[in-house]
Amino acid sequence: MIFKAVRVPFKSGRYAVILNEEDASELGVREGDRVRVRFGRTGVVATVQITREIVERGFVGLTDLASRELGISDGVEVDVYPSPKPKSVELIKKKTRGEKLNQDEIRKIVEDITNNALSEVELTAFVISSMLRGMDFDEIEWLTRAMIETGERIEFDRGTVVDKHSIGGVPGNKISLLIVPTVAAAGLLIPKTASRAITSASGTADTMEVLANVNLSVDEIKEITEKVGGVIAWGGATNIAPADDKIIRVEHPLSIDPRPQLLASVMAKKGSVGAKHVVIDIPVGEGAKIEKMDVGRSLSNDFIELGRRLGLNVMTAITYGGQPIGRAIGPAIEAKEALKTMEDRHGPSSLVEKSLGIAGILFEMTGIAANGYQHARKIFESGKTLEKFREIVAAQGGDENIKAEDIAVGDKTYTLTSSVEGAVVSVNNKSIVKIARTAGAPKDKGAGVYVHKKRGEVVKAGDPLLTIYAEKEWKLDNAIEVANTERPIVVSGMVLEVHGKRGV
Amino acid sequence: MIFKAVRVPFKSGRYAVILNEEDASELGVREGDRVRVRFGRTGVVATVQITREIVERGFVGLTDLASRELGISDGVEVDVYPSPKPKSVELIKKKTRGEKLNQDEIRKIVEDITNNALSEVELTAFVISSMLRGMDFDEIEWLTRAMIETGERIEFDRGTVVDKHSIGGVPGNKISLLIVPTVAAAGLLIPKTASRAITSASGTADTMEVLANVNLSVDEIKEITEKVGGVIAWGGATNIAPADDKIIRVEHPLSIDPRPQLLASVMAKKGSVGAKHVVIDIPVGEGAKIEKMDVGRSLSNDFIELGRRLGLNVMTAITYGGQPIGRAIGPAIEAKEALKTMEDRHGPSSLVEKSLGIAGILFEMTGIAANGYQHARKIFESGKTLEKFREIVAAQGGDENIKAEDIAVGDKTYTLTSSVEGAVVSVNNKSIVKIARTAGAPKDKGAGVYVHKKRGEVVKAGDPLLTIYAEKEWKLDNAIEVANTERPIVVSGMVLEVHGKRGV
Repeated sequence: MIFKAVRVPFKSGRYAVILNEEDASELGVREGDRVRVRFGRTGVVATVQITREIVERGFVGLTDLASRELGISDGVEVDVYPSPKPKSVELIKKKTRGEKLNQDEIRKIVEDITNNALSEVELTAFVISSMLRGMDFDEIEWLTRAMIETGERIEFDRGTVVDKHSIGGVPGNKISLLIVPTVAAAGLLIPKTASRAITSASGTADTMEVLANVNLSVDEIKEITEKVGGVIAWGGATNIAPADDKIIRVEHPLSIDPRPQLLASVMAKKGSVGAKHVVIDIPVGEGAKIEKMDVGRSLSNDFIELGRRLGLNVMTAITYGGQPIGRAIGPAIEAKEALKTMEDRHGPSSLVEKSLGIAGILFEMTGIAANGYQHARKIFESGKTLEKFREIVAAQGGDENIKAEDIAVGDKTYTLTSSVEGAVVSVNNKSIVKIARTAGAPKDKGAGVYVHKKRGEVVKAGDPLLTIYAEKEWKLDNAIEVANTERPIVVSGMVLEVHGKRGV
Repeated sequence: MIFKAVRVPFKSGRYAVILNEEDASELGVREGDRVRVRFGRTGVVATVQITREIVERGFVGLTDLASRELGISDGVEVDVYPSPKPKSVELIKKKTRGEKLNQDEIRKIVEDITNNALSEVELTAFVISSMLRGMDFDEIEWLTRAMIETGERIEFDRGTVVDKHSIGGVPGNKISLLIVPTVAAAGLLIPKTASRAITSASGTADTMEVLANVNLSVDEIKEITEKVGGVIAWGGATNIAPADDKIIRVEHPLSIDPRPQLLASVMAKKGSVGAKHVVIDIPVGEGAKIEKMDVGRSLSNDFIELGRRLGLNVMTAITYGGQPIGRAIGPAIEAKEALKTMEDRHGPSSLVEKSLGIAGILFEMTGIAANGYQHARKIFESGKTLEKFREIVAAQGGDENIKAEDIAVGDKTYTLTSSVEGAVVSVNNKSIVKIARTAGAPKDKGAGVYVHKKRGEVVKAGDPLLTIYAEKEWKLDNAIEVANTERPIVVSGMVLEVHGKRGV
């Protein structure tokens, strides 16, 4: 049927059209069904939303993505007709039945994911089926290759390209801000694409954004890396492995991370930027994504095997993830801590040791040094890490003279103190993140939490345990409420029990 | 945060709110996240859609369901804040891990489904996990009970309540139109709730709607059943087992029908109307929902066991489902065929024998007759089936003097003829349905297909094979195109091969 197009400015990750109730019935489609919208020689398959009033009979509403793809203006005529399900829906059902998919089939599914051709129901069916039925290494390799091939890629003409990735789950993990300049200072190329926070208080991209522009195109990432050796960009601004972002959109609400998708997600990003040597940081500990050592080890083996199949040299580092890295959690406060550590050539040992350890592994993998850690420490202590970091910030449009003390954090603060004397027995990752997010992070860059006392440190009654920073009073109030109901930092008195009768 | 409410008339099966991009960012929510909207003492949890323009900053758009639930008018102030996931999301993840759920947990999930508290992603995760991890009979029983308890129920004060259900998949299955009056004529109560077509050409509710009103409330169903013994109503107009409809909404796009949900879906509806004796019709054959006899038998066992657990007396009938029942497919043409069969006290044997066979089982279950089939045939041939059917039609607001010849069907027709002489070797269920739907069924009541020749019948070249009925020329054209590409009816010539040289 022919309709007049009208743009309806919904920001949706999918192609969607809005039809009047009567027209939908006439076309024989229901909410969530697919239609093909054809305009001249272009066309998209979109899912149907049904309205009584917003769109009149004879009109079809097109949301942002769809109208942009078709290049339409209001009032042009488009042809709308029911569209069959894409072939990949049958392939997803095959996986649901527990059958192995071949390379072409996986490629077809990934293409349809990339082209927004699958509904949330179908994509969820794919993710859950892959999780429950599993994928063997062939399938995981094909999934990774398909993700790489359906996105943009970077190829460097010269130099040794390396990369690192943390699988996440530990707060305050701002190590990339130290690793990238340390590695680049040694002459390697490290085009690091990072993510923004989904459930955390600050992703590496959010933290870096406090100091520089992270919305870089693939061409800019390449150019800056070739010029100064490294970059810290937001991967979401590129079209690198776009299927991955769409898969994450259904994993996030279920807080699941099926291993086939996790492996493919990480390695597709590394493969897309042309990295040859990669270190995977796997934090293990209470409240981290991986809580058990044996799970961390088995994941480590899988990364190495997948790297071998893809022709990437992979090493993994299982790291301690039972409490935050460093003491700062939240975009600005993390940027400040990282920069101050580079300025001082000294800082929280969890941050410095971890960063230099991982940089060191890359030095050993590439033959730069026999003792990579020592080499990394030399660069860090010589001030070359700071110098290179400032070059990178400048190349990404930031202020190369930025100092830690110039970085503003939220001016609404509250400090939680200890009511008892004793030692910290735990710093709860999840509670800390919850407080920081309630205070406004990552959206309010200045919001976050500073942890004064970490595990094992001795506390006197009245000592500060953590300080909450916020940009807005009401968000601070909410965060204080969360801090008072959660137990973010647990202090145990030195005297645990007293028996017998006091007094005379 | 406080927003001014504005109603946005989207018909969506879920509670949804529309927020301006900036406000969503301020609240820290993304597309698909949950917020709680509070207005005075009422509140709903809704999922977020994000817009750039439709809803201005400071306003929140509420779709039909949500604004009705809250009873708001435009401009009132509502409080909107991020809402945590409902507890049932954790329970769904438990099923994903393969653990058995207890009765309270299943009840919680079903309540959240009923209250639209789960997103499509979460609901899909539940359905796929139940399918792949399976549910044992305890869980299936609890699921059924929870579906019954979260919906409306009918309790009859007197009489023997019976019911029948066909699990579907065979076109032209208008048997309820004959069974319900035959059973009611014998003094039993049969409050039949039926569905509309989802993927078929006509559901029983669509067919009955040609003759009477099927949008009946639970009270009307009870009243009419008590008055005339039977009713044929659309279940979707009631609030009987509402969770089931919502589950079907995610199963449909995947064309899956996991056994736990299938069993619970059918039995919850029967239990909700107070049926004590139930026959389940399981059509088996090529192109039906169940294609293999052993699958049909195992499903049959499951229905009987589930009935035993629920205190319902269940029998099953495995029926031939390899081609349509009767010759007519489509709402009006099926109503016409059913009515004519009752008027003539004679008709297509697939229709008459099946209907009387199933009615007969109910007579034997309730002790009305030792030979139920003979009893049913007597009622049918005496004209009491027709008489009772007219009472039912009248009680549902239809014309009690309606005759088959008065029922109008689409006046745009096309007849497909055989190009060869031979015998029909197959009538393809799926192709027939596709043609009927393309011709406009079930939306255009007069659209459909009439099958002139069924399996085993002898055909001469030029004989009509099927006639397509449509209300609109363009839909007829499309249906003809489908008929010419599919092979809805396959005729094999009597001479299959000729060898040697013809002529002198």
